[in-house]
Amino acid sequence: MVSNLQNLFSDMANNSKRSAIREILKLTQQPEIISFAGGLPAPESFPIDDLKEIVNRVLYEDGAAALQYDATEGLKELREVLVKRYQNEGVECALENLIITTASQQGLDLLGRVFLNPGDTVICGLPSYLGGINAFQTYGAVMTGVPLDQYGMRADLLEEKLKELIQQNRKPKFIYIIPDFQNPAGITMPEWRRLQIITIANQYDILIVEDSPYREIRFEGEHQPMMYQLDNTGQVITLGTFSKIVAPGFRIGWVLAHPAINDKLVTSKQSADLCTPTFVQKIAAKYLKSPRFEVNLKYTIDLYRLRRNIMLEGFRQYMPDGVSWTEPEGGLFLFVTLPEYIDAEKLFFRAIEKKVAFVVGHVFFADGSGKNTFRMNFSFVNEAQNREGVKRLADAIREEMEAYQLQKGKKTVAVN
Amino acid sequence: MVSNLQNLFSDMANNSKRSAIREILKLTQQPEIISFAGGLPAPESFPIDDLKEIVNRVLYEDGAAALQYDATEGLKELREVLVKRYQNEGVECALENLIITTASQQGLDLLGRVFLNPGDTVICGLPSYLGGINAFQTYGAVMTGVPLDQYGMRADLLEEKLKELIQQNRKPKFIYIIPDFQNPAGITMPEWRRLQIITIANQYDILIVEDSPYREIRFEGEHQPMMYQLDNTGQVITLGTFSKIVAPGFRIGWVLAHPAINDKLVTSKQSADLCTPTFVQKIAAKYLKSPRFEVNLKYTIDLYRLRRNIMLEGFRQYMPDGVSWTEPEGGLFLFVTLPEYIDAEKLFFRAIEKKVAFVVGHVFFADGSGKNTFRMNFSFVNEAQNREGVKRLADAIREEMEAYQLQKGKKTVAVN
Repeated sequence: MVSNLQNLFSDMANNSKRSAIREILKLTQQPEIISFAGGLPAPESFPIDDLKEIVNRVLYEDGAAALQYDATEGLKELREVLVKRYQNEGVECALENLIITTASQQGLDLLGRVFLNPGDTVICGLPSYLGGINAFQTYGAVMTGVPLDQYGMRADLLEEKLKELIQQNRKPKFIYIIPDFQNPAGITMPEWRRLQIITIANQYDILIVEDSPYREIRFEGEHQPMMYQLDNTGQVITLGTFSKIVAPGFRIGWVLAHPAINDKLVTSKQSADLCTPTFVQKIAAKYLKSPRFEVNLKYTIDLYRLRRNIMLEGFRQYMPDGVSWTEPEGGLFLFVTLPEYIDAEKLFFRAIEKKVAFVVGHVFFADGSGKNTFRMNFSFVNEAQNREGVKRLADAIREEMEAYQLQKGKKTVAVN
Repeated sequence: MVSNLQNLFSDMANNSKRSAIREILKLTQQPEIISFAGGLPAPESFPIDDLKEIVNRVLYEDGAAALQYDATEGLKELREVLVKRYQNEGVECALENLIITTASQQGLDLLGRVFLNPGDTVICGLPSYLGGINAFQTYGAVMTGVPLDQYGMRADLLEEKLKELIQQNRKPKFIYIIPDFQNPAGITMPEWRRLQIITIANQYDILIVEDSPYREIRFEGEHQPMMYQLDNTGQVITLGTFSKIVAPGFRIGWVLAHPAINDKLVTSKQSADLCTPTFVQKIAAKYLKSPRFEVNLKYTIDLYRLRRNIMLEGFRQYMPDGVSWTEPEGGLFLFVTLPEYIDAEKLFFRAIEKKVAFVVGHVFFADGSGKNTFRMNFSFVNEAQNREGVKRLADAIREEMEAYQLQKGKKTVAVN
């Protein structure tokens, strides 16, 4: 081995952090632990029987093409069906607006690559999806957080922050937003708030990255228009994925953007992985065109609604006073806020002892706040385990609160 | 749209060039053109029937797991079978030495990301695989070429170059080598030359990146030991791929390296695409374990040997004096050198008129030389088209030579 390996690594390698979630996942994979930590879709939602038919059709009808290299921008057949779905929803877009990525994580990575120089500023919500934060930080981004309220990113604080940053000559490259059933907060931005944010972005001449993996998993309420659709000047870049509506094991995502942006993304993708696996793109295209797709999506939504309901019931029944949580209208996650004096990281280890797990919230806060918060996934764990897990978790929280009171009591005694 | 989009793009986006090959491929995709330009495997070599069986088994036996997220370092089952294949060949390695990438292009990209800061030097052969050059240049690498002879990269010139670079305080981060049936040159490095290069790398304390996509496609002669195996101190990083031995449409590659290097690559891969599609990894693992894999590989080798032979016969029969070419013992490519006065780019357009295509050689030369060279792929085009294409190409070359002589004659006359 070379004598100086550690010194050979690049600045980017040193910027890259192992995802706290994926490391925590290892802890939570012990047997008997009921884990609400991961962001895994329910395996019961995977349309295995439908796919048997589709995959065989791909191999019979398109075998050679499905196994060959294909265009970097993605399989035309898949791009066409995705564009058509958007058009049916009233979104103005054409084939040149849509490219395929190796799941939306690659979309985030390519956006980082194409827009970010070390030291560039990116605005994100407090909290925000960790995979986005990590992707941008890898390219040396300084992530600057704007707090959310019940309607998502606060427009007033966003404008304040923008003024401040521009004054400091640190105008952000883009604003990163997850408008539907936000990961981790479980909050959805109503149309009026989307419009407020877009107006500010227009006014300050800043791009918006709209990360939209959960949009189609809505349990109740009205679909809100995509920010891409509301803007329609090319200032919004939207990321979509097959991972939550069919299965993550295909790693199919897409970017909806102005062709001038897609052009740069495609050039970058050429050297990143040449093209997304043709075989899975063919399967995705055929499945999206099959009537079975909508049937399975409805099944998935129903299943996740049930699991969210069970989790919310458990929370209402078992959680001690002082604990609050979001009630998402869709998606995979809800977010819990503990009394300020409780450290979610300490709670995590107590929960692991009780064989239940979550993800501590502070990893989602670019400013390191959120020490008293955590994220719960409700899509993966089955109904019985969901009930049992929430009960265990409530016990752990109660004990942690009591331990604090005891500790405080002792301190008071010691002072007296 | 924002008013200043072009100014928003990063240095990396500006470093990224569209692959000249992929752009040329568009020109060559006109109907009736016999294209030796791409690097496409023969669709006839894809084991479609075998895969029908394997894919169904994956869905029946492992459906849910195959459709779920999996570890960033790759599916354990696939890593195990790949490690075992290397071990059977006498390569000392363990599970921790091997990670899966989204084809070996991602391996190149991650190596760039993990090792290269803008301005860092990388050594490559003259010529070298364009996808490697592009991947490293994206990260701001200065590619420095060392000429090849019939045994691959010249060890004496490598050492000279290293001394020169070190004196200039530009010690390279690594040496990029394609030892087997090099793309584009079609040259294979014998063991003694590999040992020479490794000795120099050891002495100067520099990593070697061994890119090995074609290694198993050998038509004749003895397999040469991998540089990874010859070194075995952890100083060699080897890239492998499923693309040439089964099918590129799966986008399965791997990196064989010291665990300390793999650790950094995995962290980078987390933010690049989280994980390679589980579904295709499952298929790859099962297929590598099936006896059908070796049968199909032998078929592929036999087919490519036949096509190489036909191309070489055509060259011997039709090429005018002054044209020389390599005679590869395996792989997908041979490399042609024209008389110095012929510009391969001018020839390219004459060839397109004659409905035949190749890739101009100078794109593979980091120093911009090689204007009188071009690359021929023999894996893709069928036997009859192969014969016809070479004949057309020889005609184009003869015409280009005659045009030059005529031009020269005129000039001589004009001077007189």
